[in-house]
Amino acid sequence: MSPSDAGAQYLAEIRDQPAALRRLLEHRADFAEAAAEARRRGPGIVRMVGHGSSDNAASFGVYAFGLLSGLTAMRDSISLIAYYGADIDLDGATVVALSQSGRTPDVLEYVERARARGAFTIGVTNEPDSDLAQTAEAVLPLAAGPELAVAATKTYSNQLAALALLAGCMAGRCDELAGLLEQVADLVEAHLPDFERGASSFAVPFASVARMFVIGRGPEFATAREIALKLLETCQIAAEPLTATDLAHGPVAALDPLFPVWALATEDETLGAVVEAIARAREAHATVVASGTAAEALSDAQYFLPVPKPPNPMLAPLLSVVPGQLFAGAVARAKGLDPDKPRGLSKVTLAR
Amino acid sequence: MSPSDAGAQYLAEIRDQPAALRRLLEHRADFAEAAAEARRRGPGIVRMVGHGSSDNAASFGVYAFGLLSGLTAMRDSISLIAYYGADIDLDGATVVALSQSGRTPDVLEYVERARARGAFTIGVTNEPDSDLAQTAEAVLPLAAGPELAVAATKTYSNQLAALALLAGCMAGRCDELAGLLEQVADLVEAHLPDFERGASSFAVPFASVARMFVIGRGPEFATAREIALKLLETCQIAAEPLTATDLAHGPVAALDPLFPVWALATEDETLGAVVEAIARAREAHATVVASGTAAEALSDAQYFLPVPKPPNPMLAPLLSVVPGQLFAGAVARAKGLDPDKPRGLSKVTLAR
Repeated sequence: MSPSDAGAQYLAEIRDQPAALRRLLEHRADFAEAAAEARRRGPGIVRMVGHGSSDNAASFGVYAFGLLSGLTAMRDSISLIAYYGADIDLDGATVVALSQSGRTPDVLEYVERARARGAFTIGVTNEPDSDLAQTAEAVLPLAAGPELAVAATKTYSNQLAALALLAGCMAGRCDELAGLLEQVADLVEAHLPDFERGASSFAVPFASVARMFVIGRGPEFATAREIALKLLETCQIAAEPLTATDLAHGPVAALDPLFPVWALATEDETLGAVVEAIARAREAHATVVASGTAAEALSDAQYFLPVPKPPNPMLAPLLSVVPGQLFAGAVARAKGLDPDKPRGLSKVTLAR
Repeated sequence: MSPSDAGAQYLAEIRDQPAALRRLLEHRADFAEAAAEARRRGPGIVRMVGHGSSDNAASFGVYAFGLLSGLTAMRDSISLIAYYGADIDLDGATVVALSQSGRTPDVLEYVERARARGAFTIGVTNEPDSDLAQTAEAVLPLAAGPELAVAATKTYSNQLAALALLAGCMAGRCDELAGLLEQVADLVEAHLPDFERGASSFAVPFASVARMFVIGRGPEFATAREIALKLLETCQIAAEPLTATDLAHGPVAALDPLFPVWALATEDETLGAVVEAIARAREAHATVVASGTAAEALSDAQYFLPVPKPPNPMLAPLLSVVPGQLFAGAVARAKGLDPDKPRGLSKVTLAR
């Protein structure tokens, strides 16, 4: 492989995201059916499980279910149910198990146990013939197409879309959400060239960065987590996701000019908290990258990677993750690393 | 202030933890009463909120309520309720709001809104005359005594004890839990000199460390989060907490010999996952600090800070946080920093 091929797969899969979103939407009937069954069985609370990018997507699910369908959704503790065998009544609960490969061992074990305890179990996977599809009562295909780069991109954004669509269907708003997600796919497609130019314009100075915070709040906390994970796995940067408010509760003390902050500012009720947190980061002389739909509100940032406003502010994470994915790839290449094959990782993680 | 006084308050408050635990237990009648009212009103699910160390304690609460009383407990999204005004039915839910100062603005706003939506609201605070105590229907005093160092120590361990005691009371096991916590206080007291010797024995080589992972699973994930926060705020180390399994889902790619891992190994059902994760960290040549009740299971670690086994394995976090608190203080002093007054922080965080 020539050095110029490094990250080619990763980049191709980022660029495939609009098409991948549209493929997911072809399966909307499956979502409507699973939502109807969940409503029939409960719906009680929604318990989401997954690791890595799947768990990051679940952070978004908390807001998708809460805001679209008024349901309590939580990132459940896998170990509480799968390892410790906690005696918790799951009757009427809806389990949403997220695993791109459908083979994550303790997610499978969780689903088996939750099903035995009375939960309605839905598997969301890119491999509809996987073990997860056999273990869960309903299967929602991610339909992202083959993802070959180790670092997840289009399976992550399709997980976000799947959670939004399922939440919408559970509120009887299946068609509305599908329509909104189609508009988001169009927006991502239209802005990809801008995102690519912006993200590579300042990758080189970040090749020497060892640590970063990525700040977001509300639905964008999922984006903060996912961008931090991309930076960790593809660029070997110790990037930690924090909510805007948690930054002030301790971590701000660690900042200095060599410890940059990536901030996701959204035009919604949390914007004030993000603006305030970034003011504190600037007091510590941290370099700030402003992104999100309200990036310009962080007026003293050094770098800007704005994203367009989606038709519903809650769907902003589908747009704002893309500059982060691209930036991680660009920094990796600037460091001579291959984002397609991060050291020590394999595509399917079978760790327990 | 002479340099030798740096961190004197922080150290004094760590040493006060056994006495602080015993002071909390004098209030067990308040816990029994709140638990009885929560059971009368629901108890539904337990929704915990807090920032920083309080949110770390809530990670422990997930296991305390799940294992002791078979209840679903979650770290709720403050922004979903307080900022976005999500239309979620909270009737029958029990809210446990954690704020050492009792003044955290968005925690107060969350409690007000949750109460209006039908939840039974309990405030857990070290300031029983604070706004939180006025806003919540029941108040549980932390009774940790004045905490003057900015980095929380004894208020954190008393939050763990408060959650365990409340969970025990909700299962009709108030006296049993109080007895177990008394034994834990005795164990902390007996082992403090060992912990202090162990934690300071290798602080100097860590003065040049810029980034770390702190690994734990199950109840010890709370400890991983809290130790990482102490390292961030007192030592300016970019320390990120991860569950053992999540380490394998990406972050392991960032490890190298200059990126150490602090691992919490407990003699329970998650030990295999922690041993496996640390084997992968060692393959990446990371330096490993082995702590927890089963530290010796991580046989190829470079440093060991074992803790004794508590009478119930779920209470291990009250012991295993102490070497981490002490280590953070020792590294801070080795770097010429004052753990009593981290840069840019104040004791009461009023950030939204």
